[in-house]
Amino acid sequence: MKLLKDSKRALLKPHLLSVEDLSIPEVDILLNKANFYADANKQKGKIEKTLKRSTVITLFFETSTRTKTSFELAAKRLGANSIGINASASAIKKGETLIDTAMTLNAMHADVLIVRHPDSGAVKLLSEKVNCAVINAGDGTHEHPTQALLDALTIKRNKKNIKNLNIAICGDVLHSRVARSNILLLSKLGARLRVIAPPTLIPKNIENLGIEVFTDMKKGLVDCDIVMMLRLQMERMKGLYVPSTKEYFKFYGLDHEKLKKAKKDALIMHPGPMNRGIEIDSSLADNLDRSLIHQQVEMGVAVRMACLEMLTLGIDK
Amino acid sequence: MKLLKDSKRALLKPHLLSVEDLSIPEVDILLNKANFYADANKQKGKIEKTLKRSTVITLFFETSTRTKTSFELAAKRLGANSIGINASASAIKKGETLIDTAMTLNAMHADVLIVRHPDSGAVKLLSEKVNCAVINAGDGTHEHPTQALLDALTIKRNKKNIKNLNIAICGDVLHSRVARSNILLLSKLGARLRVIAPPTLIPKNIENLGIEVFTDMKKGLVDCDIVMMLRLQMERMKGLYVPSTKEYFKFYGLDHEKLKKAKKDALIMHPGPMNRGIEIDSSLADNLDRSLIHQQVEMGVAVRMACLEMLTLGIDK
Amino acid sequence: MKLLKDSKRALLKPHLLSVEDLSIPEVDILLNKANFYADANKQKGKIEKTLKRSTVITLFFETSTRTKTSFELAAKRLGANSIGINASASAIKKGETLIDTAMTLNAMHADVLIVRHPDSGAVKLLSEKVNCAVINAGDGTHEHPTQALLDALTIKRNKKNIKNLNIAICGDVLHSRVARSNILLLSKLGARLRVIAPPTLIPKNIENLGIEVFTDMKKGLVDCDIVMMLRLQMERMKGLYVPSTKEYFKFYGLDHEKLKKAKKDALIMHPGPMNRGIEIDSSLADNLDRSLIHQQVEMGVAVRMACLEMLTLGIDK
Repeated sequence: MKLLKDSKRALLKPHLLSVEDLSIPEVDILLNKANFYADANKQKGKIEKTLKRSTVITLFFETSTRTKTSFELAAKRLGANSIGINASASAIKKGETLIDTAMTLNAMHADVLIVRHPDSGAVKLLSEKVNCAVINAGDGTHEHPTQALLDALTIKRNKKNIKNLNIAICGDVLHSRVARSNILLLSKLGARLRVIAPPTLIPKNIENLGIEVFTDMKKGLVDCDIVMMLRLQMERMKGLYVPSTKEYFKFYGLDHEKLKKAKKDALIMHPGPMNRGIEIDSSLADNLDRSLIHQQVEMGVAVRMACLEMLTLGIDK
Repeated sequence: MKLLKDSKRALLKPHLLSVEDLSIPEVDILLNKANFYADANKQKGKIEKTLKRSTVITLFFETSTRTKTSFELAAKRLGANSIGINASASAIKKGETLIDTAMTLNAMHADVLIVRHPDSGAVKLLSEKVNCAVINAGDGTHEHPTQALLDALTIKRNKKNIKNLNIAICGDVLHSRVARSNILLLSKLGARLRVIAPPTLIPKNIENLGIEVFTDMKKGLVDCDIVMMLRLQMERMKGLYVPSTKEYFKFYGLDHEKLKKAKKDALIMHPGPMNRGIEIDSSLADNLDRSLIHQQVEMGVAVRMACLEMLTLGIDK
Repeated sequence: MKLLKDSKRALLKPHLLSVEDLSIPEVDILLNKANFYADANKQKGKIEKTLKRSTVITLFFETSTRTKTSFELAAKRLGANSIGINASASAIKKGETLIDTAMTLNAMHADVLIVRHPDSGAVKLLSEKVNCAVINAGDGTHEHPTQALLDALTIKRNKKNIKNLNIAICGDVLHSRVARSNILLLSKLGARLRVIAPPTLIPKNIENLGIEVFTDMKKGLVDCDIVMMLRLQMERMKGLYVPSTKEYFKFYGLDHEKLKKAKKDALIMHPGPMNRGIEIDSSLADNLDRSLIHQQVEMGVAVRMACLEMLTLGIDK
């Protein structure tokens, strides 16, 4: 990657692998830019094709509609040449390694590789071998930085400030890269974080992140501004973590009754896809006065446009 | 969907779900526009990018090359950001509902969702939940409106008028959304319709649509201007509808001998993909003096361009 | 395909099916154009959208990341409407023939069809039925012309001249369309070719192509300028061709010791995807002083841009 002499790079690092890497001013720049694109997308305003000479490749080793489509739309709206690679149907089958696949795409002069991989750390490993920008679109149970950024933007647009908000992250915290990225980012932005989950789904030593831990949902929701539900990641569970989905809903599913414990104007979030009736009551999910779920999707495209632009800015395109 | 004050919408309804919804003037507008694009595609003329700020998403819950490619090409030729989602590889696997998938795409500010689904009525259901335009690209055994429109355009370009033509639809009428949409549209445009099929493949009460019914193909073809063959939808048949494909071809496959019963200048159509030697003799399918099969494919792209343009016209893009 | 009166066609034939079809001046034109695009891709220069009214469709009946992505990027960088069809998920499943699929895409006014097929000769057969340009992206064990062209360009950029170079092609020559196309093209350009392989992996009568044959790798590598390793095509091997991959590496895998037999400045190539530790030592593959493997991928996009442009040049777009 050639950086211009008079570099206009907004981000210090060439990749977006983790929210841990981002400083608060960098987060602000990304969220401001994303906020601009959120309005432009809504108004179908003319969007400058800032990536029109760039090549953006999505390389997904796990299936995904939501995130992959969101990134591809973001790339196309900015005018990039966008190519999606379904990695399960790829050369990996022919015995090529992850790194070789990435280096091959790099050699085609990709400008940004967007990678999802079931192994924690795989995307970072890959980023060390290529000279294009890499975005982590989710690696194992580690991080999913653009999800945390889109959640922060959604909260900001609805609550004005993130600072001092009480935010509960509820459910399968153990298997959730979304939870991890959100805890790191929202704490950094001044929110007071707590997690609520059955004991089997709480990562060890999570208190070290400086957050409160509850196993009783009704206690945990008291005084919350934001209730962020997580998907029960049944495909990542090897063994028995929850007795039954019915039991799970009874104790940890968000319903009208439990929500009453939170603040009156508490808002609901969910990264999707939802298991309706398992982690969230279906009518609550659809209640547009309380649920920010569709706004999260909407902000997702905007945040990814901002990330793509910021990561390619200052590169000699 | 925000309609402009001074709306230029050509179509009354925001979606294209069924030919039943279309008035004759609306059909005329669509076919005229499609006719224009058919010529432009052929001459590689400069095509105005009328959808250049629009996002078109295909969401197919059944595999398809022909229809999906046709829609994607139509969207790209008009300059849209086009994304194709193979729904079997999607979030549906993760337990997300059809409606959640559609609402997710809607939240990304799609302008048009093009949906194929194995269940009759599923596309209509979905259209009620989103605020973008929805095109039914085939739902169960119900409707496939763009196929009927492209068939109408193909007939019009070859026979000048559709009115008073004798049109036979032959074969697996029972499982065919193509048959259903064509009967509705071509009747509306003044053609005289008849169906020819073995008794097991004729829907009950089809006479109520005001058409003739034949079980003897040689009798049914007498005096026909257009012979429209249907694909034997073996994948939709649960149980025994036809004794054997060999027997089927003998009695209901179109061959040179049976075709002699139709008018001398009768033309052959087939929506594809063909089962050669089962519902149609291979040499007849390839006879460019009689077969309109490739023209149907050609008109398909043009009709879909017209539909995309008309459904987004007057929307504040 | 309508050729312009005052045709500017650089290539005599309308398709690119085989390097056998190309004259030396045609190869020169393609490599010069590709060389231009190689520099433009590297410098992110402004690339004229010479295919902006063209439709390019990839139709792959074998899975591939590398080649399919390379062609799609090439098409997009030139501004074409590009659509990729994964043929295993296509109408073929519904009983449509290869030819019907191709003619369907042709009827949609494709300008270029790029086809990979497991059967030798299938792409040529298909090219005879359509009136758009067809590029063979690999047919069975027959040919893979753009791979040979990109290899020639890679050699030319590193060794200045191809003439009189000693080039060894090593490994699974029997199953390799890459080997076949390279032998034909590089011989035509004046190189001295030899193949090195175990007796079971040498095609019968290969000497008739005017090349040397070695079964002892250490002897075969003596005095070589270019060592081109082939992938062990285990998926195409029916039966027992090699005793074990460990044995294979010992005798026919390229390692530091064997490489010493070649010229001091010998360069290594591999069409990818590599089986590391089977046909090539991993550290050698990654040694940027000796390995041209990433350059091959880079040249691949450039060569395909040149081919797409030359095949559509002079067509009334």
